[in-house]
Amino acid sequence: MVYAAIDIGGTKIAGALVDDSGRLLVRAQRPTPARESAEVLLDAVAAVLDELAADTRWEAVTCLGVASAGPVDAAVGTVSPVNIPAWRDFPLVERLRARPLLPRGVDPVLVGDGVAMTAAEHWLGAARGVDNALCFVVSTGVGGGLILDGRPHTGRTGNAGHIGHISVDLEGTACPCGGRGCVEGFASGTAIAARALATGWQPPEGQPPTAATVARTAVDGDPLARAAFDRAARALAAGIAATASLVELDLVVVGGGVAQSGDLLFAPLRRHLAEYAALDFTRDLRVVPARLALDAGLIGAAALAARASDASHPAPHPPPTENSR
Amino acid sequence: MVYAAIDIGGTKIAGALVDDSGRLLVRAQRPTPARESAEVLLDAVAAVLDELAADTRWEAVTCLGVASAGPVDAAVGTVSPVNIPAWRDFPLVERLRARPLLPRGVDPVLVGDGVAMTAAEHWLGAARGVDNALCFVVSTGVGGGLILDGRPHTGRTGNAGHIGHISVDLEGTACPCGGRGCVEGFASGTAIAARALATGWQPPEGQPPTAATVARTAVDGDPLARAAFDRAARALAAGIAATASLVELDLVVVGGGVAQSGDLLFAPLRRHLAEYAALDFTRDLRVVPARLALDAGLIGAAALAARASDASHPAPHPPPTENSR
Repeated sequence: MVYAAIDIGGTKIAGALVDDSGRLLVRAQRPTPARESAEVLLDAVAAVLDELAADTRWEAVTCLGVASAGPVDAAVGTVSPVNIPAWRDFPLVERLRARPLLPRGVDPVLVGDGVAMTAAEHWLGAARGVDNALCFVVSTGVGGGLILDGRPHTGRTGNAGHIGHISVDLEGTACPCGGRGCVEGFASGTAIAARALATGWQPPEGQPPTAATVARTAVDGDPLARAAFDRAARALAAGIAATASLVELDLVVVGGGVAQSGDLLFAPLRRHLAEYAALDFTRDLRVVPARLALDAGLIGAAALAARASDASHPAPHPPPTENSR
Repeated sequence: MVYAAIDIGGTKIAGALVDDSGRLLVRAQRPTPARESAEVLLDAVAAVLDELAADTRWEAVTCLGVASAGPVDAAVGTVSPVNIPAWRDFPLVERLRARPLLPRGVDPVLVGDGVAMTAAEHWLGAARGVDNALCFVVSTGVGGGLILDGRPHTGRTGNAGHIGHISVDLEGTACPCGGRGCVEGFASGTAIAARALATGWQPPEGQPPTAATVARTAVDGDPLARAAFDRAARALAAGIAATASLVELDLVVVGGGVAQSGDLLFAPLRRHLAEYAALDFTRDLRVVPARLALDAGLIGAAALAARASDASHPAPHPPPTENSR
């Protein structure tokens, strides 16, 4: 079996042919012309698809998964990525369907990138064999997805698991999403850097005022930098605990650039989680790093498309579940 | 088909035989001896079962659903109801299994009462035909359950949908659950009355300082009483919005004593929800009152037991879904 996958982000558009063990057979990539017109953007996606189609295995492709930066609406096939202004309710699925290039019978399956990352971690990464998991990335933003009862829970529009925009501070700062006190406003890389600066932290001479720099100075013991990470971890812990209370979780998987600061994030995250997740059924929840940083979007899009194209198989090569009753 | 159901609450233990259209064929009830020993409590449950067993239709019973005040642990069959101190990790399922009275092949199915109420609203109430719903009650506490992809999502331990104990104020008041800033601490009847009193509200001469009295004076225009309801509604709205971001919802169903104050709760709830649920896929979420106040626990326990006893039938007489894709 050969699956095709596209992953559309704010900086790059990647594509791949993926086999049924999750291996990338061929990979293509273009920079995202994020400030260009809707059609120029579509041309870039088409160029990636064309490159894949030049491979001899293209004719064997049975499905096409399309992961996109959100928000997406998988129910109607449109995308409105925050960082790609020309695409607002852009009918990506319809436009891809219209391409003569797609192998016969292949219908694009659209999902949000957080949901795709989650499906990848469940298929081949840290959530393999886990029945109920929350997976999310902490980088420029905070996005995620859910595995429930052993399957990806995508939601009707492909946005489920959107932990970045749940409120953990009902009288908190207004969020660009329209809400207030959202997790992302505490825990994204942008938020961590902004918080550090607001409390008087300064980057060392010649270094940019980014979350990565905050992380480096925190490791060196800067108390303001450590406090900014602690605050992010606390908001993430409250959001994780809320998710565990709502759906019951066996595992939490955290990826993305900010998570790569390791214990700097994970140690306070686990400490705060012990406070917020104190019910019998939410206590002692394991929190682990993601395993599939690179190409998780492509791998997950392939997995979800394979699932959608064959309802009798819940996942390509479903792994045995360690927590099944 | 005849289903048996028990509903164990802090004030009463109810039981019924239920037919496959959800009608109660016979009903039994005892006061909960909440301050007595574990065995006296079990005797009261047994007395309710004995009364049901005296009915001629008992021999036709195919399953037994047991709803209990939480927390419960359906995975191991124990209950630890907050308001029934003698039962802590009480092995209710094992003790019921040991009773010679149960019809052959009938194994008790334990669920939390919020999950049971939700299953009832999905089977016969306000969430009928809805694929993704959050149902909850606002009374002494706040508890609920989830319908996902057209089925009750119980969680591994039977506690999923526990919206009362998600934090919407990460630096808020410590909650008896061990967490902080939980929805229940803002929105339960107890919390509404406490808030009103703390802001200087006083009940009219001769009336008790309860949420019901706060509601009556709020309807009469008392600004402190109205503010207490507004604050409860705001916390509920933040919790509902979080749930919608995490799992994607089509409908929210609200029951319980406090919800019976009608627009006093629903009007500010809908107004605040418009603020917190502002994403494309969370906006315009319908919020409606529950329909099955009385006996929802029994009806839902019966539905969940019927489902568990026959995996090929997702629910007794599953209704057509209006939102299926």
